[in-house]
Amino acid sequence: MLGIQNAPFLITTGNPMSTIDIGLVGVGKIACDQHLPAIDSSPDFRLVATADPHSRLDGVDGYDSLAAMLNGVPGLQAVAICTPTHLRYSQARIALEHGKGVLLEKPPGATLSEVEDLISQADRQGCPLFAAWHSRFAPGVAAAREWLAEKAIHRVEIEWKEDVRVWHPGQAWIWEPGGMGVFDPGINALSIVTRILPRAFFLREASLQVPSNCQTPIAAELSFSDAQDTPIHAAFDFRQTGPQTWDIHVDTDDGRLSLTHGGSRLVIGRQVVLEAEEREYAGLYARFAELVRAGTSDVDVAPLRHVADAFLYGHREIVDAFVE
Amino acid sequence: MLGIQNAPFLITTGNPMSTIDIGLVGVGKIACDQHLPAIDSSPDFRLVATADPHSRLDGVDGYDSLAAMLNGVPGLQAVAICTPTHLRYSQARIALEHGKGVLLEKPPGATLSEVEDLISQADRQGCPLFAAWHSRFAPGVAAAREWLAEKAIHRVEIEWKEDVRVWHPGQAWIWEPGGMGVFDPGINALSIVTRILPRAFFLREASLQVPSNCQTPIAAELSFSDAQDTPIHAAFDFRQTGPQTWDIHVDTDDGRLSLTHGGSRLVIGRQVVLEAEEREYAGLYARFAELVRAGTSDVDVAPLRHVADAFLYGHREIVDAFVE
Repeated sequence: MLGIQNAPFLITTGNPMSTIDIGLVGVGKIACDQHLPAIDSSPDFRLVATADPHSRLDGVDGYDSLAAMLNGVPGLQAVAICTPTHLRYSQARIALEHGKGVLLEKPPGATLSEVEDLISQADRQGCPLFAAWHSRFAPGVAAAREWLAEKAIHRVEIEWKEDVRVWHPGQAWIWEPGGMGVFDPGINALSIVTRILPRAFFLREASLQVPSNCQTPIAAELSFSDAQDTPIHAAFDFRQTGPQTWDIHVDTDDGRLSLTHGGSRLVIGRQVVLEAEEREYAGLYARFAELVRAGTSDVDVAPLRHVADAFLYGHREIVDAFVE
Repeated sequence: MLGIQNAPFLITTGNPMSTIDIGLVGVGKIACDQHLPAIDSSPDFRLVATADPHSRLDGVDGYDSLAAMLNGVPGLQAVAICTPTHLRYSQARIALEHGKGVLLEKPPGATLSEVEDLISQADRQGCPLFAAWHSRFAPGVAAAREWLAEKAIHRVEIEWKEDVRVWHPGQAWIWEPGGMGVFDPGINALSIVTRILPRAFFLREASLQVPSNCQTPIAAELSFSDAQDTPIHAAFDFRQTGPQTWDIHVDTDDGRLSLTHGGSRLVIGRQVVLEAEEREYAGLYARFAELVRAGTSDVDVAPLRHVADAFLYGHREIVDAFVE
């Protein structure tokens, strides 16, 4: 599928620096859909091994566990951790103990405290740790951030509504503790908004709609504010059929900015500033390469903290059972 | 009741440094039960005003709001914020904007993100901000911390069980979002354990028992771990009748440490190391004086982060309705 090991030219062309040998921990849906193509086309990385007890890839050395992979490939420089969320901490800890650079899929952990512990460990070990919020690498995010930096912001509207049956078929974990329900996509919106707005914000009020047979919400309404009392409203819904909505609108003293289609389309005033194909994971791996080469970390817990705040402070309402 | 304004000798005796003029924001149960006696007997502080729309104190200038108090007493150096939790952020922000030192009753905010924002503001303003975890000033905490610093820890058991009808009569807010239910006392245990254990820990599994007519749990079982896989177990219960239990036991390579009675009694092995009257708020105000004089902050969000993690990652079970 990848054939990277048979294409050593990748190592010597296209990039003045040598490629980084990386291992993939957890060969599931997100790894195959996003990480493998991104690593495959990256000038920075070379996939040398995978670790997964249930799955391996043609043409890539496969190990049953991270420990076995680290033992088998001592020259490994970095790992990307794509396991289910609740296993990320233990895997990241082992990788950091072995001095590897670590990329964590989003969310970076099942709890904030375990992410804090990883930050401390990475710091002690001097290893780069990267909490990879993929939506921050959507095409319009950087330009939106730049444009908003100097504006007076009057109001923010976030609408993140998708059909869980289409995007998460059979993924029962999403309804269990740690699965976060509609916050699984919603945290992507939060990762963008925390990136593009010039000031930190925080929850004032939330209602969470939880199906009677689930642990996590299927929909949420969130009212945030910042230190200047800017109203920031978010509506997340997993029950959207028909057209899907992943839009952020920011009203400013200089007109409205609309970052829509998950960040792929940026409109300021009436002008389409940018409309591009989604290549989030390419940008994400370019950033990880920078971090590994500089030996620095980039772990922003703000998106996960907002989710934890919503669970802590939100008002729960029981709604109809969810049947897939 | 206090008569501090009629006792100017307090200003000039007992302490080589001048006393700090403090205002109290929110004159409710915790202010009257704990803050007023502690300020009254403190060599460091002089209560000069209160701010509360519904309540004032004999012999102390009373204002209806923090803004009015700041306007009326421009020389105020510090404020203690004892309002309901969800109002703390807005009050603290105003006080920091006016350059005052700020003490926040526990928990320091309704959400983690608003506390982070206060930390940033205090930092920008150069104002001391103190998240006051009163249980950390229980008599045995410092000695327990010191003794545990060098020990190999095998196991930790936390039992925090009290009768909500005795300790929180009529306090319906405790069952609303932000009231935290049994975590209102439980966070005191967490504030001690995060202080005395030498390593950070994090949640692995939790079950929360939520009454069918409440938003917040009446009981919780929590399993934590640390980077050395130490098992740390906590049982919180609000339905305890008869003897009340606020105990922490730590098994080490050098025997068992038991910090019981909310931190007032410390037993190591078979020896009673310490058994003292609870004077938490005296220690807390002594610490706040240090911070105000040094112009530094002390905001540890770890206890609140653990509670947010439990709400985020805990499994909820509906139990019998709570009727007071």
